[in-house]
Amino acid sequence: MSSSAPVMLNSDGTTGKAAQAANPGRFISVYSELQTNRLNQCLPLPSVLKNPFKIVEGPPSSSSGNPDEIAKLFPNLFGQPSSTLVPSEKETLASDQKLKIGVVLSGGQAPGGHNVICGIFDYLQDRAKGSTLYGFKGGPAGIMRCKYVELTADYIFPYRNQGGFDMIRSGRDKIETPEQFKQTEETAMKLDLDGLVVIGGDDSNTNACLLAENFREKKMKTRVIGCPKTIDGDLKCKEVPTSFGFDTACKIYAEMIGNVMTDARSTGKYYHFVRLMGRAASHITLECALQTHPNITIIGEEVSAKKQTLKNVTDYITDIICKRAELGFNYGVILIPEGLIDFIPEVQQLIAELNEILAHGVIDEDGLWKKKLRDQSQQLFLFLPKAIQEQLLLERDPHGNVQVAKIETEKMLIQMVETELEKRKQEGTYKGQFKGQSHFFGYEGRCGMPTNFDSTYCYALGYGAGALLHSGKTGLISSVGNLAAPVEEWTVGGTALTSLMDVERRHGKFKPVIKKAMVELEGAPFRKFASLREEWAYKNRYISPGPVQFIGPSSNGINHTLLLELGAQA
Amino acid sequence: MSSSAPVMLNSDGTTGKAAQAANPGRFISVYSELQTNRLNQCLPLPSVLKNPFKIVEGPPSSSSGNPDEIAKLFPNLFGQPSSTLVPSEKETLASDQKLKIGVVLSGGQAPGGHNVICGIFDYLQDRAKGSTLYGFKGGPAGIMRCKYVELTADYIFPYRNQGGFDMIRSGRDKIETPEQFKQTEETAMKLDLDGLVVIGGDDSNTNACLLAENFREKKMKTRVIGCPKTIDGDLKCKEVPTSFGFDTACKIYAEMIGNVMTDARSTGKYYHFVRLMGRAASHITLECALQTHPNITIIGEEVSAKKQTLKNVTDYITDIICKRAELGFNYGVILIPEGLIDFIPEVQQLIAELNEILAHGVIDEDGLWKKKLRDQSQQLFLFLPKAIQEQLLLERDPHGNVQVAKIETEKMLIQMVETELEKRKQEGTYKGQFKGQSHFFGYEGRCGMPTNFDSTYCYALGYGAGALLHSGKTGLISSVGNLAAPVEEWTVGGTALTSLMDVERRHGKFKPVIKKAMVELEGAPFRKFASLREEWAYKNRYISPGPVQFIGPSSNGINHTLLLELGAQA
Repeated sequence: MSSSAPVMLNSDGTTGKAAQAANPGRFISVYSELQTNRLNQCLPLPSVLKNPFKIVEGPPSSSSGNPDEIAKLFPNLFGQPSSTLVPSEKETLASDQKLKIGVVLSGGQAPGGHNVICGIFDYLQDRAKGSTLYGFKGGPAGIMRCKYVELTADYIFPYRNQGGFDMIRSGRDKIETPEQFKQTEETAMKLDLDGLVVIGGDDSNTNACLLAENFREKKMKTRVIGCPKTIDGDLKCKEVPTSFGFDTACKIYAEMIGNVMTDARSTGKYYHFVRLMGRAASHITLECALQTHPNITIIGEEVSAKKQTLKNVTDYITDIICKRAELGFNYGVILIPEGLIDFIPEVQQLIAELNEILAHGVIDEDGLWKKKLRDQSQQLFLFLPKAIQEQLLLERDPHGNVQVAKIETEKMLIQMVETELEKRKQEGTYKGQFKGQSHFFGYEGRCGMPTNFDSTYCYALGYGAGALLHSGKTGLISSVGNLAAPVEEWTVGGTALTSLMDVERRHGKFKPVIKKAMVELEGAPFRKFASLREEWAYKNRYISPGPVQFIGPSSNGINHTLLLELGAQA
Repeated sequence: MSSSAPVMLNSDGTTGKAAQAANPGRFISVYSELQTNRLNQCLPLPSVLKNPFKIVEGPPSSSSGNPDEIAKLFPNLFGQPSSTLVPSEKETLASDQKLKIGVVLSGGQAPGGHNVICGIFDYLQDRAKGSTLYGFKGGPAGIMRCKYVELTADYIFPYRNQGGFDMIRSGRDKIETPEQFKQTEETAMKLDLDGLVVIGGDDSNTNACLLAENFREKKMKTRVIGCPKTIDGDLKCKEVPTSFGFDTACKIYAEMIGNVMTDARSTGKYYHFVRLMGRAASHITLECALQTHPNITIIGEEVSAKKQTLKNVTDYITDIICKRAELGFNYGVILIPEGLIDFIPEVQQLIAELNEILAHGVIDEDGLWKKKLRDQSQQLFLFLPKAIQEQLLLERDPHGNVQVAKIETEKMLIQMVETELEKRKQEGTYKGQFKGQSHFFGYEGRCGMPTNFDSTYCYALGYGAGALLHSGKTGLISSVGNLAAPVEEWTVGGTALTSLMDVERRHGKFKPVIKKAMVELEGAPFRKFASLREEWAYKNRYISPGPVQFIGPSSNGINHTLLLELGAQA
């Protein structure tokens, strides 16, 4: 057995302590053996990207909703057809064209972001030699402030197949005001940009489309292509079957859940309440459930659709725990989506009322302030564990609002279940033992090493984005499809961003939005889950997926959600 | 790409839905692709175990301390030599001898326990055909109550190379009273046991030795062999270089820490405070630090040796955070051992006083009770964050004592650091931004899939234990050494359990104990850490080990602690 001794990695991929001295100004890291192995992993490309291609356009597109309003908001882009790359007899693009392209990472990290950038870079190297790639630093603010770094082969090498967004970092700023659009134009002109790739979620891709529209309107040559990023998995549609990062994050969480399940079964005395990242949609929780078969899984979209109360959710969990106790199981694993509270209407109502009271009144120690709450909200407040009550009153954000995101839902549920079980014990309807253990899996998954799937998918997304820009396209989102087939057969193209859009009315104005894709209760993943959960609840069908593998027969699986959705489409 | 669709696994390793129907009474699981692959993984054995061997005995042994007392406590076993297996020309043991062996798992789970059992089983199959292996269920209580299952090839197959202790479960009971020893004798006689293998930590191995002494004294044929188990890594000595489970648990935690580090660097705005399992000793924290290079690492043994106060620890962290802010880093990763509080004398003092007050007095709301605390304890209590103060007063165990184990040290430190930073901000000595994120990595590591190292090490420990029992040995702990060499060259034998022992005086009597191996401040692992921590503090030398691999070049590394300790011994 050999040691996994770390190696100093030089920016050109050589190793040695000299690395740091040679690049004093650059970030130089120390790499684990696995990181080094991943660096040197060559990735397969869809075959359409390995040979000359041409672009075939589809029919004119519409929008996801309110086409008239979207047409008004995007007069220059609305109706664009989608583009598909197909093999061509000869090269259709000038390979001596030297492009200047910018790239930006926007929003929260997702495993694979670095590979998108590497894909763009390699496309330019392979097909448009002499091109330049600029990385805007710290997200969209980097564009506005023209803060960038030129991405060279040396610069990007240490980030190939690695997690994180640390190559150029990310940021959450939005380009919104006329002044900000102006700054963006100035940067595009200063750098003489032919194109910009925006790697981000629903908001960032909406922003990308607004930029594309603006550049087109101003008759600037800068084209804009988006890339679908978010571990939450809520940016997807027929042409964009999944967002990158979801596969890796779910597999990392599922590894941990599987370990906790084995622990639960071995010990036989704990109920593990696991809260999983994913605020808006419950895709991560659903996917982890399909991978691991927990006893109980709460899906926010179902709670919302059934208009359940917090008491309903507590009772649902408690009922299963009681029935399991009768079967002799005083242990189990329960998955909870981070955003659960946001799906419960009565909680939203309570928080709205609390914000109102906190803004205008005083919280007296005698609790007279509670009379200002509506009856239902008062009841709910009293139903909450004391620690949560205090948290709601004491922890506020800079605007004075209750910090819903800080509520540890898993701990809250443990306490509420405990109280309910105690009641049932008094009544003689529960004779088991209950000990809750709480977990939150979040940050551990956002920056993991991308799985083989995410590594390859991102590389194709980036390489494809390069091809779209080279072909003169703008206002598209890079789209790689046929993902259940071998990589060689994956399809590559771009989908009109306007075709994903609808409008929302905000402050009296129509705003374009790409609606988040929520868990569909009629979709294949949820239906599969719903058909099995009763069995999982009482028969302990735990699966332990184990750690993500990069080599060998277990390294190439793709997640259940994607497979089921692709199957349902076929 | 293929789906990682789960397979139903039959107990004979075939797959199919029939499995469950065929074995209605047995636990049948659904396995992930990786679990199935691991099942079929053949493990290498040290070459001495692959051919005829004989046993060579060393000189008479003594004890770790107080040999006279140990000799009195173990009159039949004290002074036993250690045994080493060496190659032999011909078979020295009767292969037609049919043995009856029992095995028990004791204490908390550690990855690899199943493989110890598989090793014993395979030894018996290979060298003593027709032997019987009984698994006692639920730990030592299973021996006392004679609750067992006969372990057949079919029965154990699904657990090969899998995490957890679910094959026969574990338990924390001790065999202590004369009545309990009597029950154990009855079980040994009822099952006609030739031997018993006790898989456990320091306490369980002490218990194993007491059992061996008792059987010998009663002239019973039942021999007892121990195996070193604990993820905490605090059961080790020259002959037993490591306890199993430590390697896997540390690698799982290090994967998570590496991911969090990448997140910290990508986001640039969070300080992640990571508490790591390991109550008595800080080996896990030290090993994880060596694997990942965090900015700050607290080692309990150092805190204790330097007689640091909680304020000292807080200041140490705060000082580094301030200096990092000056360097432009408002993020970082901090590792904290679960047992930190137990290492701080003043906290121990406060808790002792609180227990006294809680037992005899009333906690009045006006806080007059605080006057009963000594000055230093009063000061410390007031220094603690409010939430921790309340926890100390409100949460008690069934004996009415403060629940120290429930204190979330990582959250406590975040609050104390926050307060100190706020003070320095007022004073103008700190201008940075601080946002803390807390993590506890514990249960996720105890039941992970054993690494290649732990799988192989455990298999050799079990196979060796079988050989020792077959050779008529008792009161030894299975010892596999030369672990830095290829598996073929590993040494196999047994070490006299009495040689690991010392005595402690409890209730006026001498009790034998195997002292926990603490982090040695003069040992090679700590010295390496101490020589690098200043650099890690300010230069962000983060390493991301990534997920445990089972195939390929990154799959065979062993942990730094073991490597450094072996190197220091050589």
